[in-house]
Amino acid sequence: MINGERKISRPLRWGMVGGGRLGQVGYKHRIGALRDNTAFILKAGAFDIDPERGKDFGINIGVEDSRCYPNYQAMFAEEAKLEDGVEVVSIATPNGTHYEITKAALEAGLHVICEKPLFFTSEEGEEIKRLAEQKGKIVGVTYGFSGNQMLLQMRAMIEQGKIGDIRIVDLQYTHGFSSTEDADKFSDAQKWRVDPKIAGPTFVLGDLSTHTYYMSQLIMPHMKVKKLLCDRQSFIHSRAPLEDNAFVSMHYENGAVGRLWTSSVNAGCMDGHRIRIVGSKASLEWWDSKPGELRYEVQGEPVQTLIRAMPYLDEQCNADERLGALHTEGLSESWANIYLKFAMAIDAKNHDDEETLRSLVYPDIDAGIDGIRWLENCVRSAENGSVWVDFADRPLLDVN
Amino acid sequence: MINGERKISRPLRWGMVGGGRLGQVGYKHRIGALRDNTAFILKAGAFDIDPERGKDFGINIGVEDSRCYPNYQAMFAEEAKLEDGVEVVSIATPNGTHYEITKAALEAGLHVICEKPLFFTSEEGEEIKRLAEQKGKIVGVTYGFSGNQMLLQMRAMIEQGKIGDIRIVDLQYTHGFSSTEDADKFSDAQKWRVDPKIAGPTFVLGDLSTHTYYMSQLIMPHMKVKKLLCDRQSFIHSRAPLEDNAFVSMHYENGAVGRLWTSSVNAGCMDGHRIRIVGSKASLEWWDSKPGELRYEVQGEPVQTLIRAMPYLDEQCNADERLGALHTEGLSESWANIYLKFAMAIDAKNHDDEETLRSLVYPDIDAGIDGIRWLENCVRSAENGSVWVDFADRPLLDVN
Amino acid sequence: MINGERKISRPLRWGMVGGGRLGQVGYKHRIGALRDNTAFILKAGAFDIDPERGKDFGINIGVEDSRCYPNYQAMFAEEAKLEDGVEVVSIATPNGTHYEITKAALEAGLHVICEKPLFFTSEEGEEIKRLAEQKGKIVGVTYGFSGNQMLLQMRAMIEQGKIGDIRIVDLQYTHGFSSTEDADKFSDAQKWRVDPKIAGPTFVLGDLSTHTYYMSQLIMPHMKVKKLLCDRQSFIHSRAPLEDNAFVSMHYENGAVGRLWTSSVNAGCMDGHRIRIVGSKASLEWWDSKPGELRYEVQGEPVQTLIRAMPYLDEQCNADERLGALHTEGLSESWANIYLKFAMAIDAKNHDDEETLRSLVYPDIDAGIDGIRWLENCVRSAENGSVWVDFADRPLLDVN
Amino acid sequence: MINGERKISRPLRWGMVGGGRLGQVGYKHRIGALRDNTAFILKAGAFDIDPERGKDFGINIGVEDSRCYPNYQAMFAEEAKLEDGVEVVSIATPNGTHYEITKAALEAGLHVICEKPLFFTSEEGEEIKRLAEQKGKIVGVTYGFSGNQMLLQMRAMIEQGKIGDIRIVDLQYTHGFSSTEDADKFSDAQKWRVDPKIAGPTFVLGDLSTHTYYMSQLIMPHMKVKKLLCDRQSFIHSRAPLEDNAFVSMHYENGAVGRLWTSSVNAGCMDGHRIRIVGSKASLEWWDSKPGELRYEVQGEPVQTLIRAMPYLDEQCNADERLGALHTEGLSESWANIYLKFAMAIDAKNHDDEETLRSLVYPDIDAGIDGIRWLENCVRSAENGSVWVDFADRPLLDVN
Ligand SMILES: NC(=O)c1ccc[n+]([C@@H]2O[C@H](COP(=O)([O-])OP(=O)(O)OC[C@H]3O[C@@H](n4cnc5c(N)ncnc54)[C@H](O)[C@@H]3O)[C@@H](O)[C@H]2O)c1
Ligand SMILES: NC(=O)c1ccc[n+]([C@@H]2O[C@H](COP(=O)([O-])OP(=O)(O)OC[C@H]3O[C@@H](n4cnc5c(N)ncnc54)[C@H](O)[C@@H]3O)[C@@H](O)[C@H]2O)c1
Ligand SMILES: NC(=O)c1ccc[n+]([C@@H]2O[C@H](COP(=O)([O-])OP(=O)(O)OC[C@H]3O[C@@H](n4cnc5c(N)ncnc54)[C@H](O)[C@@H]3O)[C@@H](O)[C@H]2O)c1
Ligand SMILES: NC(=O)c1ccc[n+]([C@@H]2O[C@H](COP(=O)([O-])OP(=O)(O)OC[C@H]3O[C@@H](n4cnc5c(N)ncnc54)[C@H](O)[C@@H]3O)[C@@H](O)[C@H]2O)c1
Repeated sequence: MINGERKISRPLRWGMVGGGRLGQVGYKHRIGALRDNTAFILKAGAFDIDPERGKDFGINIGVEDSRCYPNYQAMFAEEAKLEDGVEVVSIATPNGTHYEITKAALEAGLHVICEKPLFFTSEEGEEIKRLAEQKGKIVGVTYGFSGNQMLLQMRAMIEQGKIGDIRIVDLQYTHGFSSTEDADKFSDAQKWRVDPKIAGPTFVLGDLSTHTYYMSQLIMPHMKVKKLLCDRQSFIHSRAPLEDNAFVSMHYENGAVGRLWTSSVNAGCMDGHRIRIVGSKASLEWWDSKPGELRYEVQGEPVQTLIRAMPYLDEQCNADERLGALHTEGLSESWANIYLKFAMAIDAKNHDDEETLRSLVYPDIDAGIDGIRWLENCVRSAENGSVWVDFADRPLLDVN
Repeated sequence: MINGERKISRPLRWGMVGGGRLGQVGYKHRIGALRDNTAFILKAGAFDIDPERGKDFGINIGVEDSRCYPNYQAMFAEEAKLEDGVEVVSIATPNGTHYEITKAALEAGLHVICEKPLFFTSEEGEEIKRLAEQKGKIVGVTYGFSGNQMLLQMRAMIEQGKIGDIRIVDLQYTHGFSSTEDADKFSDAQKWRVDPKIAGPTFVLGDLSTHTYYMSQLIMPHMKVKKLLCDRQSFIHSRAPLEDNAFVSMHYENGAVGRLWTSSVNAGCMDGHRIRIVGSKASLEWWDSKPGELRYEVQGEPVQTLIRAMPYLDEQCNADERLGALHTEGLSESWANIYLKFAMAIDAKNHDDEETLRSLVYPDIDAGIDGIRWLENCVRSAENGSVWVDFADRPLLDVN
Repeated sequence: MINGERKISRPLRWGMVGGGRLGQVGYKHRIGALRDNTAFILKAGAFDIDPERGKDFGINIGVEDSRCYPNYQAMFAEEAKLEDGVEVVSIATPNGTHYEITKAALEAGLHVICEKPLFFTSEEGEEIKRLAEQKGKIVGVTYGFSGNQMLLQMRAMIEQGKIGDIRIVDLQYTHGFSSTEDADKFSDAQKWRVDPKIAGPTFVLGDLSTHTYYMSQLIMPHMKVKKLLCDRQSFIHSRAPLEDNAFVSMHYENGAVGRLWTSSVNAGCMDGHRIRIVGSKASLEWWDSKPGELRYEVQGEPVQTLIRAMPYLDEQCNADERLGALHTEGLSESWANIYLKFAMAIDAKNHDDEETLRSLVYPDIDAGIDGIRWLENCVRSAENGSVWVDFADRPLLDVN
Repeated sequence: MINGERKISRPLRWGMVGGGRLGQVGYKHRIGALRDNTAFILKAGAFDIDPERGKDFGINIGVEDSRCYPNYQAMFAEEAKLEDGVEVVSIATPNGTHYEITKAALEAGLHVICEKPLFFTSEEGEEIKRLAEQKGKIVGVTYGFSGNQMLLQMRAMIEQGKIGDIRIVDLQYTHGFSSTEDADKFSDAQKWRVDPKIAGPTFVLGDLSTHTYYMSQLIMPHMKVKKLLCDRQSFIHSRAPLEDNAFVSMHYENGAVGRLWTSSVNAGCMDGHRIRIVGSKASLEWWDSKPGELRYEVQGEPVQTLIRAMPYLDEQCNADERLGALHTEGLSESWANIYLKFAMAIDAKNHDDEETLRSLVYPDIDAGIDGIRWLENCVRSAENGSVWVDFADRPLLDVN
């Protein structure tokens, strides 16, 4: 159980790019990173594309005036000069800027925590991976939902054979907030999501389902996609070629099959983030809308509902528990768990502690690259008429 | 609201083929047909492949000794000689016998109510349709779940534009009772289901999802499948070529997309029969495990749960209500509703009442043939490597 | 598993008093009694206070013209003259008539199945019990919900010590259909329910919660109420002294405590019929709105949901199963189960088969009298200022 | 929507008494107070009854060595000497110490945030209230669940007449973690809870249901209890006179009735914190286990489920929103909301801003005193044989 006591020798000096006053995801980064003041301390930021608003905002959340920068270039340059300059930076800007900011940060000697989808192409991913290795830095990816410890419970139970051999994987991340064309007009965050120059080659696949795909891999690390088929649509036609709905079918190397549905036009759906793993003996099911519950359905036995914080859960799971039974945890605890692992990874990296690095389970650069590749394969399938494509785990030139 | 008072001039004299002591579905036919004693009266039967057991059983459910026949041939021949011989016969035998028994029944001048999947090929379906027309008889198909009046509520709401234009159709009928190979050994009803000679070209597609496909068409009569792709598996290898799991992707003519999951290896799943229809404004969702509820999710509004028997429901829906609010209805009410419509259709046919026939919504021979065609298209897709196939609405020679 | 085969040598000739075209509960009697045509055959009726409507209705549900009687007196007299006259009669008329009709039926040599609340006073109950014994007849009481086999599962699990010692009993039967005064004006069935001359000394206590009290006793036959306190209200003042809402607190002889809420002004509540039994180790909970599920909550273990028809259930429970897993059962199956037991009890009584009578678990005259007594004690408490009263298990003169 | 930007001119310097490494509730205070670093900054603490463990812990959560004090006396004395000494202190120690620590803190010129149940007697409450007024300080009470904004939604809807006149109040806060005697042996936090010298005159009433009672008053500020009856039990006999289970019946001044169940022996119950308010037109229901949902049940209409963060909610509710739709909030957001209001109240008090103080809705000293009084009345009823007692809103000498 985590109670806020430090896990690393001292808190890391942390800065942010993006995540300003009107940004959707910035607050989640801060509640994750700053949960306990023993992992990260917010020291600087280039919070906004609008420098003035960014500065005003930074001051308002307690950052020193002089360390609220007009842009990331200035921040990286100026902070490098300070004795207590930031050591790590989080990037919470629209997709199209992730690559260049990550690159600049690594080159400025910073660890990086970047939003998903990491970059546009897996080639960029490989390049950044090489750069990070060369610089001795961590690149973490904020698959924010993946910090929920019930996913680790699923991982542990699957590893222990509690469901038998995996046969069917059923993934869903859908909502209905973009059901009408109007949705694209009034929200800035929505505008760029349907612009391929900024969003990249996908809308909902990258926006929503990369989370779920990563979570599935976290739960079942040995399952590898062998081939897939992606059928995507733009129900609001102005969004084409970017999809607002997609179905992905997957065949795994062990013979299992999977399907994934992602959508922003699933009208009225408020609980559409779900994972079901079916094995030869039993199934496990988790819904993001009831994050503290896990259904364990053994064929021929009463349905079981496992509940967060209970002693019968695996120790891997309960190690990330914070509030105890009878108290609800939500997304902020997931982010706190992930950010704590980022801190531990950075601290380990700083101390060349390879053992810790190997044992830590968190979304690292490989998870980020795997996400991009999955998207590349989806797009390749879709663009070829929604056909089966062998999963290519190397960069695919035709999607660049 | 139905209270058991007669809807037709006199109850129909009814016989059964199959549905004997050990048969799974026979009791459902009887509780449907005999619900009120004003639609059907059970007069005769060839209930069992084992004549002795069949006779013993028939007597035990109140059929006269002399009218418990050793086989359907004897029944059709002998009953034809009686003044009060049966007028209509239900067929509740394994799939592979449906065609020949239906044909014999029609030729004996009987109306027919037959189990699903109706026959093996749509050619057989067309042939029987012609024969029934020629004989002036009804052929009904017992899609037993489809009698639930909440499906009519969905139909009414969709027709009234309550969800906008249909975009996404999400269908599921899965359970886990065949998760192990053992399942095929111990139950007779399961043995024939995995034998292509008796089951036909599919296992779960025909056994489970033809219900759901029909229900979707009942709800959205104007939606026509344009192309589909079927990916099917035999997780218990001895079942091959018959599938125990399948995913079907569908494109409809209006641009909507659909998916369907059917499985008998969804381990532990006890509530896997579901229908969700997503429109441009709202969605409707129904789960067979809570048959008296309907979720109506309007984007941007509170989620609504509509509940059976309430005055706010459409009159189409409440016309099939039987027990009133606060009282749970289950599958037996669905079957009672369907059988009542069969009775009304037969009565109308007997009286050449074409208007009634046109207005009655029930699973008729066309619904049966449509189900077979859908299966044929699924098999064709699967056998060609799970590729997209244009939905062929004429017999497909290669699946005969 | 019940499949409709006869449990008694021949179906009983059955008549009805009340339960006519506009009656609420009559149809439930018929779907219960006639479920399989092997327990009861409907031969006669005095279905309605309006003789003409009653006859028209009777004919319409298949009763012979000559056996649709203008009133119960005529029916009992005329049927007694017939060779195949009715042997058993069900009484589905308003409360205030139960006593006189039951008495007349017994005196006419008929077995009786009567609606709840059985009579107004437990003295009447004792008198009728003596009369029934003298006449060698059965008096059954249609606690219609109590036929759900999951209640027998609860009974078996409690008996087997699966929850430890019973500590807390939490009962609820509430709805909101009488939230406004208008409710009393437009429905005949509601009008008499708030008239003490016809309804008796209570409204919702007798109308709703006698069911739940009986069900609790069915589940926990060894638990006896020692004292109770009843706090009742008439939120619609014109209903006074009859209550539309009541809370009852109970102390049991073993030290357990209980509470019960009954209401017809629980606005909007559509799922308010619930039973929770808390033991020293675990709890069991059943909601009438999900009649095929039972929650089994062992302290410190995952919550279990037991599901109807599964082999892991007790054989007592599965003996009353009808449709099998994956198929929903509702109230009509409960009534069918109860009526089948009435038939078996009557058959046993006719054959002096005391062993069968002792082993059959069904709502008999004692259950009916216990229900009246519980009501008498509730009223006594309420009328004395909602004070604790020792549970009197003999007639209480002051409530006559 | 709250995004972490400051609501007061500068963060308050904050200290803690109790809430150390092994304390249950301390972490919740810190995640509440420190959520955004713009309301409170943790500067000092006397975290533990064991000074050494307390110091080690304090350092480990980032407090300066020199400001980790051996006890509250030292802390109040030393901090007073510092220029940047703490201004406000939170008390997260067992009940029996609240009064003396609060008094000492006020006398040291500090604002106080204290755990519930506030003190043992309402006389103590009145005394502290006078002292706080005299000192110009705030005393807040951490009814931690009450910060959930859906409760404000209920408050707004009730005020707007959306459910009509309140008739029935149904409150529950139960769990089963003390079902066995062992529970009292192994946990320190449980040991003192059943010791009247430390816990005060109640166990579960004060430990659990004071939360729920306060929440009900937050939701329905105009509802005043007129009389109540409390029936309490000690199922684990060694706990007597303190109860591990209690039922409270309430009559409100407007004629409404209420009931409350609190228990720590509701075996297996993991979702037992619930509030239902029934009005003449509709009901509202909230379960702590699904904190982002609110059921709105209008009699005769579809059941509505309102979901957190949606624009259709009242602005009072959405003002306290933090994460936005599709993201789950849990208990930590409730605490963050409450602590933010404490900060705003303290800031207003510091600036003599009476208007802000009047408009802020948060658990203040009056809420704390009201909670004690409710407990006093419950105990008085129970000790007199579970009889009705008129709600006394002045100190009751006989419970001192
Ligand atoms: N992990 C999650 O759960 C999650 C949730 C939402 C968004 N995201 C991801 O976060 C990223 C941001 O999404 P959002 O919804 O917050 O977008 P947004 O448009 O709401 O916010 C973007 C923020 O970045 C700022 N910004 C833009 N360009 C900048 C630049 N060059 N320098 C500094 N600041 C800049 C903007 O001013 C704004 O404050 C995207 O990559 C998105 O995919 C992740
Ligand atoms: N509509 C539904 O909900 C539903 C449910 C289950 C089964 N079914 C369908 O019903 C049919 C029967 O399935 P089942 O599970 O009851 O099978 P089953 O094997 O359990 O029972 C078949 C019954 O038919 C009898 N029978 C077999 N051949 C016969 C013959 N030539 N003449 C007379 N009787 C014969 C058997 O003795 C047995 O009583 C199948 O087509 C199946 O797809 C439909
Ligand atoms: N077991 C249950 O679940 C359940 C449910 C509803 C009602 N009930 C009970 O059933 C009884 C009837 O209730 P209801 O709601 O159906 O009432 P109702 O008013 O709807 O119907 C009563 C029926 O009895 C007929 N009737 C009245 N007096 C008669 C008489 N003297 N002779 C012949 N017929 C007569 C009426 O014409 C009508 O058809 C009541 O005792 C009630 O408590 C039980
Ligand atoms: N608001 C809520 O939701 C909530 C939840 C749990 C507990 N509580 C309340 O919080 C209080 C503490 O409960 P708990 O369960 O955390 O108890 P606990 O026994 O788990 O922890 C008490 C903490 O206080 C410390 N402590 C004890 N006496 C002290 C003293 N004199 N000086 C300094 N530190 C001291 C202990 O060392 C320990 O760290 C109680 O009043 C309880 O009712 C409230």
